[in-house]
Amino acid sequence: MVRIWAVTKEDKGMTAEECIKLLREIKDVAFATVDKEGHPQVRIIDVMIAEGEKLYFCTERGKDFYRQLMANEYTAITGMNKEFQMVRLSGPVKKLSDQKMWIDRIFEENPMMNDVYPGESRYISEAFCIEDGWLEFFDLGKVPTYRERFTIGTMKKEEKGFLITEACIGCGTCRDVCPQQCISEGKPYKIQQEHCLHCGLCKEQCPAGAIQRKDG
Amino acid sequence: MVRIWAVTKEDKGMTAEECIKLLREIKDVAFATVDKEGHPQVRIIDVMIAEGEKLYFCTERGKDFYRQLMANEYTAITGMNKEFQMVRLSGPVKKLSDQKMWIDRIFEENPMMNDVYPGESRYISEAFCIEDGWLEFFDLGKVPTYRERFTIGTMKKEEKGFLITEACIGCGTCRDVCPQQCISEGKPYKIQQEHCLHCGLCKEQCPAGAIQRKDG
Repeated sequence: MVRIWAVTKEDKGMTAEECIKLLREIKDVAFATVDKEGHPQVRIIDVMIAEGEKLYFCTERGKDFYRQLMANEYTAITGMNKEFQMVRLSGPVKKLSDQKMWIDRIFEENPMMNDVYPGESRYISEAFCIEDGWLEFFDLGKVPTYRERFTIGTMKKEEKGFLITEACIGCGTCRDVCPQQCISEGKPYKIQQEHCLHCGLCKEQCPAGAIQRKDG
Repeated sequence: MVRIWAVTKEDKGMTAEECIKLLREIKDVAFATVDKEGHPQVRIIDVMIAEGEKLYFCTERGKDFYRQLMANEYTAITGMNKEFQMVRLSGPVKKLSDQKMWIDRIFEENPMMNDVYPGESRYISEAFCIEDGWLEFFDLGKVPTYRERFTIGTMKKEEKGFLITEACIGCGTCRDVCPQQCISEGKPYKIQQEHCLHCGLCKEQCPAGAIQRKDG
């Protein structure tokens, strides 16, 4: 069975700002860090403020999360809403100056924080910002799936996924094996990047070795 | 205002097996890895099978996630349900032998996988297991919050959080500042570990320097 997907105008694009806003709406998202052994760690915390293309969060000085942020200075965030729309954001974290102002603002915009850290105890929290980073929007609730990448701040764009080169012999194997049917005929054949799952099956099956990773 | 929490019989404990089962019920959970630059990465994927204290998942050979697992061999997982109960699991990943059997079983127990990877394309996926690791259950939906730690398989237990030592002078500062009111009088004063947020405020405020991190 060959499924043919129509790419319609409804596949409207997202913006980086809309992705950051979506993370704030999801609110409880996963924050990953690297621990002192070089292993991944992850926990769910709240996105406290989204402002333009900047995302703000906080954590407490006693936590492993805080120690890992201070040591490695990078985090990666992901969340998914009920419609199976996912956002991923990764990049360096910046500890904010004027901590008192930011913590007060975070508690004002997220009043339930007062139930967890009442009164003066709020100042055990410290506020951080992500303003440079890589963003990915992935919509698994749509057929076909839809993917889009962005950068925020000064972050350099990184290409992901696969590319069919001029070495393509036009045999159609890639098109036939693609689980999302997102490869179209041509010279060379072409991957519809916004619908690609990055599974790599086309690359494995290409008899001409004509398919490459974009990031080597 | 001093809030006094009653610890009742309703604070029933969890088991490691129940935590793994909870991750399977949540199903869409965050998997963190470390990339080749030593930075954290995270994405949401499905927990495919939970069996006793083992958790199974899969990913495709073309994905960065796959490359990161093969290079670093560790992952950290977290998910939260609608009742604000969270589970964290971290540890080494084991690529399974007899891949065909495992992929077929995963697709049988998770039939929606056939919509994403129809027919033979399923074999671009590879199955992994976590059978040794650290687990944490954290219930933010309860007042007071409730926390419990476990290990699975051969993983050595690690102590987290804070401890009040014999250097305690009994002044009560820690009890007064604790945002969760989970420190009780005594010689020395004592932290109710299952309700502790690990914020570290007690340690910062103790005038006798009597409070230590359990993990140094």
